[in-house]
Amino acid sequence: MKLLRVNMKNLQAEWEPVPAIYEHLGGRALIAKLLLEEVPPTCDALGPHNKLIFAPGLLGGAGVTTAGRLSVGSKSPLTGGIKETNAGGTAGDRLGRLDVKAIVVEEQSEKGALYLLHISGDTAELLQSDNLRGLGTYATSNRLQEQYGEDSTVISIGQAGEFLMTGAGICSTGEPGQRSNHAARGGLGAVMGSKGLKAVVIDKAASKSFSFADSDLFRAASKRFAKEIMESPKLGPKGGTHTYGTAAIMGAVNEMGALPTRNFSVGSFKDSVNLRGETIRETILAREGKMGTRCMPGCVIGCRHQYVDETGEPIVGTMQYETLALIGSNLGIGNLDDVARLNYMCNDFGLDTIETGAALGVAIEAGLAQFGDTEGIISLLKQVGEGTALGRVIGNGAVTAGRVFGIRRVPAALGQAMPGYDPRSLKGNGVTYATSPQGADHTAGNAFGARNQVNPLGVEGQKELSLKLQIISAMLDSTGLCLFARPPVISEPQLMADMINGIFGWGLSVDDLDKLYRDVLRNELEFNRRAGKTAADYRIPEYMREEPLAPHNSVFDVPDSELDAVFDTL
Amino acid sequence: MKLLRVNMKNLQAEWEPVPAIYEHLGGRALIAKLLLEEVPPTCDALGPHNKLIFAPGLLGGAGVTTAGRLSVGSKSPLTGGIKETNAGGTAGDRLGRLDVKAIVVEEQSEKGALYLLHISGDTAELLQSDNLRGLGTYATSNRLQEQYGEDSTVISIGQAGEFLMTGAGICSTGEPGQRSNHAARGGLGAVMGSKGLKAVVIDKAASKSFSFADSDLFRAASKRFAKEIMESPKLGPKGGTHTYGTAAIMGAVNEMGALPTRNFSVGSFKDSVNLRGETIRETILAREGKMGTRCMPGCVIGCRHQYVDETGEPIVGTMQYETLALIGSNLGIGNLDDVARLNYMCNDFGLDTIETGAALGVAIEAGLAQFGDTEGIISLLKQVGEGTALGRVIGNGAVTAGRVFGIRRVPAALGQAMPGYDPRSLKGNGVTYATSPQGADHTAGNAFGARNQVNPLGVEGQKELSLKLQIISAMLDSTGLCLFARPPVISEPQLMADMINGIFGWGLSVDDLDKLYRDVLRNELEFNRRAGKTAADYRIPEYMREEPLAPHNSVFDVPDSELDAVFDTL
Repeated sequence: MKLLRVNMKNLQAEWEPVPAIYEHLGGRALIAKLLLEEVPPTCDALGPHNKLIFAPGLLGGAGVTTAGRLSVGSKSPLTGGIKETNAGGTAGDRLGRLDVKAIVVEEQSEKGALYLLHISGDTAELLQSDNLRGLGTYATSNRLQEQYGEDSTVISIGQAGEFLMTGAGICSTGEPGQRSNHAARGGLGAVMGSKGLKAVVIDKAASKSFSFADSDLFRAASKRFAKEIMESPKLGPKGGTHTYGTAAIMGAVNEMGALPTRNFSVGSFKDSVNLRGETIRETILAREGKMGTRCMPGCVIGCRHQYVDETGEPIVGTMQYETLALIGSNLGIGNLDDVARLNYMCNDFGLDTIETGAALGVAIEAGLAQFGDTEGIISLLKQVGEGTALGRVIGNGAVTAGRVFGIRRVPAALGQAMPGYDPRSLKGNGVTYATSPQGADHTAGNAFGARNQVNPLGVEGQKELSLKLQIISAMLDSTGLCLFARPPVISEPQLMADMINGIFGWGLSVDDLDKLYRDVLRNELEFNRRAGKTAADYRIPEYMREEPLAPHNSVFDVPDSELDAVFDTL
Repeated sequence: MKLLRVNMKNLQAEWEPVPAIYEHLGGRALIAKLLLEEVPPTCDALGPHNKLIFAPGLLGGAGVTTAGRLSVGSKSPLTGGIKETNAGGTAGDRLGRLDVKAIVVEEQSEKGALYLLHISGDTAELLQSDNLRGLGTYATSNRLQEQYGEDSTVISIGQAGEFLMTGAGICSTGEPGQRSNHAARGGLGAVMGSKGLKAVVIDKAASKSFSFADSDLFRAASKRFAKEIMESPKLGPKGGTHTYGTAAIMGAVNEMGALPTRNFSVGSFKDSVNLRGETIRETILAREGKMGTRCMPGCVIGCRHQYVDETGEPIVGTMQYETLALIGSNLGIGNLDDVARLNYMCNDFGLDTIETGAALGVAIEAGLAQFGDTEGIISLLKQVGEGTALGRVIGNGAVTAGRVFGIRRVPAALGQAMPGYDPRSLKGNGVTYATSPQGADHTAGNAFGARNQVNPLGVEGQKELSLKLQIISAMLDSTGLCLFARPPVISEPQLMADMINGIFGWGLSVDDLDKLYRDVLRNELEFNRRAGKTAADYRIPEYMREEPLAPHNSVFDVPDSELDAVFDTL
């Protein structure tokens, strides 16, 4: 495999062999190691010494189901710590097939000039692209796909990334016509903007056979892996995830009282039924939109949909649970069409819906709009794309909004907004938010799925649960797998070893893999330590320890000593 | 002596005896100890667990010249660390005469209601004062002095503090007619706002004899102390400080290439001659304004003036060097009348001129106005008082402005804007900015005065110089002395011991005092450590290590290892 080094200062893109220390690593694991080796942890995240990494997971390109996610990594301008965020689409698969371990973007363009990185087979070059300045992600990918082919992959930033907003994500296209997969978290769109990189285009490669060290071993394991997913009651063709999308959990989260509502002031929402996966399905089918589509080639789960308006016109590629929670209930909006419009705007500007929803919640608490007033909220959000002062505040996320507007009820940890689970009523997630080197994140170690094993309102067992889930997340994020592939990864760990060994012939045991993925967390924690992060930076906000959350009147009461002990057994 | 505990939640103000652990402490020393003992270092600085402390120095009320400063302390919402900031005016002297060691404001008012704390002799009570909401500091003190007497002391916040802006300071009145002394730094005005405390009024006490343990010892020492100051060529009646005010140094700073100019992009300003103390003096005298006035009763230096407009109408009580640097040259403004107008607005809104000037510099770099365009800058600043989104960004200071506007050239350390000395050409100040628990601060250990002993452009000796100055600053800030009193404090340390022993009879030696003031720094560093601060938080911004500063093309090149070693000999 090879590494592409892209220098934005001297405008060179050069292939190099993969250094030995990175050989066994993919996705998040590679990002953690590379940042620790090559980026000064105290550097300015939006300065020349930070690096932006695009990396498929270890399984990327091999054709494993749900394993085509693209990891993007950097020091985060939002958290000040290390960050990996990943997205579906075709990039992960395509880079894997091109034998590309990672693209490493270094330095910054002169005078903020914008460039496009074009990769076509073995050719990679930077092209001046100031003509794309100011375009949203939809227009950018449309225009580039017109030029490079509908089947090319376009990774891009919108206005938010150009404005260096710390709520900016990175958008990646999927199969033809599918343009909204977002590596949304941690403000990495701002890092891409700071480099002067507006987009990456990867041409569809001429078909090339992927080489396997042991194709029989690989094939048997990957087939079994897909079968396990297909046969899972939750993940299979009749499962909730496929049938209703990620919003299948809306009802359950609302019932457990952990649904962020009106800036995390209560844990259930009177109109949540309107936002449930079941309602999405009914609405879409009645309007002749599509349910059960996929974000990555070959995914057998298919949790995606195309949300359409009353005339059948597509609004947004998929409406995810986190978006429905943060932009829906958290803003008091209980109408799917309204959430879809806001979602579209976030996607187009290239904004993280979680961070932006949380920032809007804070802005509303400050009196800048009313909860549930979609038009008022739209006019706030519109300003992000326009780059007004108010828009820039919101585009910089919840913590900045809280500071500027003088609001202390800011749902964030390590500077990053919380996803769709209030930690007062799902305390395992609180432990993850307050300890993960990634900050508050829905994929870093999400305890929702374990709610029947560990009492979400209790303290006991949360510490151990969070660590276990954080290690599994590190594995998923390093192999290119979707979070939904978690069940077979847990129940049959040998399959993962077999798939990796089948591809690379490394002969790794399950224990070797376990160590590898624990090392991801170790490297990330070490990066953050060197960046100056301490326990105080990770903590759950004070108000969540003191302000009881209806309906359970719960507070986040996992003691600091428990939080500080999470990694004792790492 | 006694302590006044003010609880903003149950609206009680109660006297208590001074706890033994605080007995030997005043001003900044008391603040450091009390915060370490009573405030959780990780608390939300704008939440109920933070405390706001008003404390005279140990010499306050005894009639020592230049020793009437009022220290204000709290966990800073700007730096996230400990903060002490002090101001002239009558408060320090008056509280000392009332035998008050400190006022400790705790908790928060319900629903943001505003109150006034009225102290009259032994009586202290909280009074509802929502009628003062939205008033600037001039109107607030005018109105309260109409009510409580022209000779009452009014401590207040303006709009900035009410809006919880982290650039907000606290204003304190002086002798009749003198209304602009500011404990400006660290955003403590926002803490006062978060408590719901709009103002403190201290009636002029009925004359009461101050009791001395050994009045002869005290009198001899304090007389000698005043004489030393009077006879100092710099501080005496013919010295530059009295003659030209704090701006006496403008020419020298400009010549050494350390004058913040156009957002710290160069170190000298073509129009700096217009901003020099000499020009101020000429202008004021020609307009029949006043030079050589004082901020505190009994001060023999008298570095203050009353800046008047062309018709002789007063604009602002004094224009200090730091203001002229940050709001003048740093914004490309080379006209005294223009700086005076901006200064008045900052004073009235209750804003730190250093933080606000730095934030405006960042905003200008982001294209929101032009350097030197006073009208454009005024219209930005006006918005702070109006509380628009843009105004709130600027009112929250330089780091927030940099984040929101996507600017990485932000002159700050520990989250606080640098005062009027670019650390690239006055490296001793850089060492102080990068190590002081107070963040970048002009009084925490200012090396300007030692420019002839230690080469300002060199690395050698800066570490030792900074530590020495930081300890002396801790002493000054704990005794109520002005920074200008530094020379006799250094040359005749026994005078300080004699004055303190003369008042209290503690029999402290010079060594005891040295330990006491080293302990101030130790306590502050410990508070910050517990608040999660690490070396990474204190560092000088990356660009100042890489971007050469004209005219010397200097960068800040004191190695991190030197910075980390500053307190090794504390």
